[in-house]
Amino acid sequence: MSAERIVVLGADAAGMSAAHQALRTAKQAGRTVEVVALEKTDHTSYSACGIPYWVSGEVDSSDELIARGPERHREMGVDLLTGATALAIDAASGSVTYDQGGIERQIRYDQLVIATGASPIVPAWARRPDGGLVGGVAPCKTLIDGEQWIDLLTAASGGGEPSPRVVVAGGGYIGVEMAEAARARGLDVTLLTRSMVMSSLDPDMSARVEKQLAEAGVQVANGAEVIGLETNDRGWVTSVSSADGEVHRCDLLVLATGVRPVTDFGADSGLDVGEWGGFRPAPDGSLAPGIWAAGDCCEVRHRLTGQWTFSPLGTHANKQGRIVGTNVVTPGARAFNGVLGTAITRYVHGDAHLEVSRTGLSTREAERAGIAAASMVTEGRTASGYMTEAAPAAVKVLADPGSRALLGAQIVGGRASAKRIDTVAASLWSGASIDDLAEADLAYAPPFATVWEIVQLAARRLADSL
Amino acid sequence: MSAERIVVLGADAAGMSAAHQALRTAKQAGRTVEVVALEKTDHTSYSACGIPYWVSGEVDSSDELIARGPERHREMGVDLLTGATALAIDAASGSVTYDQGGIERQIRYDQLVIATGASPIVPAWARRPDGGLVGGVAPCKTLIDGEQWIDLLTAASGGGEPSPRVVVAGGGYIGVEMAEAARARGLDVTLLTRSMVMSSLDPDMSARVEKQLAEAGVQVANGAEVIGLETNDRGWVTSVSSADGEVHRCDLLVLATGVRPVTDFGADSGLDVGEWGGFRPAPDGSLAPGIWAAGDCCEVRHRLTGQWTFSPLGTHANKQGRIVGTNVVTPGARAFNGVLGTAITRYVHGDAHLEVSRTGLSTREAERAGIAAASMVTEGRTASGYMTEAAPAAVKVLADPGSRALLGAQIVGGRASAKRIDTVAASLWSGASIDDLAEADLAYAPPFATVWEIVQLAARRLADSL
Repeated sequence: MSAERIVVLGADAAGMSAAHQALRTAKQAGRTVEVVALEKTDHTSYSACGIPYWVSGEVDSSDELIARGPERHREMGVDLLTGATALAIDAASGSVTYDQGGIERQIRYDQLVIATGASPIVPAWARRPDGGLVGGVAPCKTLIDGEQWIDLLTAASGGGEPSPRVVVAGGGYIGVEMAEAARARGLDVTLLTRSMVMSSLDPDMSARVEKQLAEAGVQVANGAEVIGLETNDRGWVTSVSSADGEVHRCDLLVLATGVRPVTDFGADSGLDVGEWGGFRPAPDGSLAPGIWAAGDCCEVRHRLTGQWTFSPLGTHANKQGRIVGTNVVTPGARAFNGVLGTAITRYVHGDAHLEVSRTGLSTREAERAGIAAASMVTEGRTASGYMTEAAPAAVKVLADPGSRALLGAQIVGGRASAKRIDTVAASLWSGASIDDLAEADLAYAPPFATVWEIVQLAARRLADSL
Repeated sequence: MSAERIVVLGADAAGMSAAHQALRTAKQAGRTVEVVALEKTDHTSYSACGIPYWVSGEVDSSDELIARGPERHREMGVDLLTGATALAIDAASGSVTYDQGGIERQIRYDQLVIATGASPIVPAWARRPDGGLVGGVAPCKTLIDGEQWIDLLTAASGGGEPSPRVVVAGGGYIGVEMAEAARARGLDVTLLTRSMVMSSLDPDMSARVEKQLAEAGVQVANGAEVIGLETNDRGWVTSVSSADGEVHRCDLLVLATGVRPVTDFGADSGLDVGEWGGFRPAPDGSLAPGIWAAGDCCEVRHRLTGQWTFSPLGTHANKQGRIVGTNVVTPGARAFNGVLGTAITRYVHGDAHLEVSRTGLSTREAERAGIAAASMVTEGRTASGYMTEAAPAAVKVLADPGSRALLGAQIVGGRASAKRIDTVAASLWSGASIDDLAEADLAYAPPFATVWEIVQLAARRLADSL
């Protein structure tokens, strides 16, 4: 009898975590498994989150972003096929049809792990009639996108009259990071958002981000969903039109309008998808008998509300991959216990240093979950006021005024402010009350905090008001 | 009937937090209280933790360390007497005897709040026959100490042959911070410790601190408890002798050998003290009917073991002062729910940037509490390896192998490493398991963390091993 075959679709964070964890778990259990991975690109296990810092020039080479290349995975025991795109799953027979180099093949599996990730949302207006992207327009999701952006920004930074301008469509994390990258390359930047910058924040905290971005030289236009673009006779973008009737001149356009789960190959397989188009695996990662899913192709349960949401992040992908990789060999051994919606980013240019983070529920998310959250913004500092390290930080904390349960927090501040969100995330993960956070024994010394740590002060002030 | 009189002994963090909180609470309750504070020095509400950074020259003036001076407290409604030292408490009659300007007086109280803090331990060998300190020898606890150290270090930094050397007796937080200050003033430093540097860490983590201090140019001698000193004919220290038989040449000697609670005035009052000489208030801050205590003159309960310990820190003092200030007006309103032993410091000089923190139980502390802790050290980075922000960090996590309860953590690393201890502290405060910390949704973006946040990776690896 041949070894059990585990086929993994996708060779990035979730897929390769699952692959190696399955090999490791099998080895520990004294069993043999065969792990085959199909990857549609030629790249594996790279840091998509790092691409904006490569585009900006802070990271020298894409090699640095690659944790493990194909050869390394093969050396470690994964039978990896690159340039292999899954086309269909036949759950009844236990096989996957895929294309490799224009040739359609089938592979049989005993266990299938779907880790196909997410792909950028490309609006119809960004495409030429032939389906390709308009000149000067691209998302920034893959290493190929990154390389293209380095070329585009480098070429544009040569100057001109008026000076070259990059429009970034989308004010989320990638949007802000690409604004930083474009500024680092010496270009002017306009950031267009559908509603507001960092819309996972409450409006008052978003406004702080917007103000500081503007002070740092980024033009921000809110309520400016891009609905169309204009090109010159070479088919190159020259301006974009937004829903508010404005026209924004540009030489380059970054599509940072979000991603959606890649699940199309599952269409006829009987695998359901949810509101965001993602798979909805059980806590153990299973979708159906012998079929598992992990990473950005999945929706996730919010730990606080129990509701499904879409939170495509490397952190979840790595955790889920590891869980699935274990369970595929030893069923039921591990479970994914949800997300808090924790996220962090920064905008740094010259002397400007802005950090932003959030965790848990925003006011609107709490509302949707039926909770009228109480909240308060506290302004303070990251270190004792007399220390050179002291940078401003605004911390908004949210709690349920009835149960006093901590619900979430948002931080907008200077250097060393945003990572403090982990203190709140750890509290939230354990079901802490607002009082718990206000009372906890957190670290203080003058270079690191004020004597009432800013996150704790914010919790205390909110607790006092309830 | 006159207003209820609250007498507060000590006008620093705990005392003044209590005083103002009592005024605030009474106002909210529509009551009137009279708050009288007796302070033996002329200074109030200053940051003792900031003094090493003033001595180092990083902070320009002691004014910056003073949160609120005497006049400000008086404006805010506290009847503050400076230069007033409590001599005795008569609990039966409800009065305190104190000395002010050589005149003994008495003051009646309805409620007494003791917040007399702690004072440096000055070994007998550091004193002259007349009781004063030997020349060139001083602790660094008060603003007066700080001023003296600036003078001493400035004078010594003039140079000489051999080059002037400061011996710091004591390798705890203050010892390391004063080593930084002396190096910043251009002096050579020898750090002598009784057992090891940062002895609240496990020996392996202490060894990492020691190694990095040595690399940064601080001579460290462990097992070198100072037992005596030698002076020149001007009565100035010239060397110290340590218990291991060594003699260490020095021009200046910092006493960083710890502090003890100031409770002597309570000797005949029937107020008991514990193993470390501190009061042991109930969770509401009460010691006896009408008598309360807060801050460094108290011992505290460890939240994880329930055992008494001594943890003289501004964070606890501020919290306890606030609790007592509330309860003295509205009894039972608040409680102090213990400490985790969280602490943080750094050593920075030139290119050397070392951060150290800890929370919860060390291996030895767990042992004393009857737990054979499992632990593991994980080495990682503070940011993705390809980012310029990436600094090394070693994280040791401890857990109970039976219950899987998280017990503590210790961090030794570079810039932006140590404050991550708050993630562990918040988890510990909520009674999290090692698995909870390994699973939590923490913040990741390349400038801020690795995709498995180092603290979480450390927890995960330990969890896997159990």
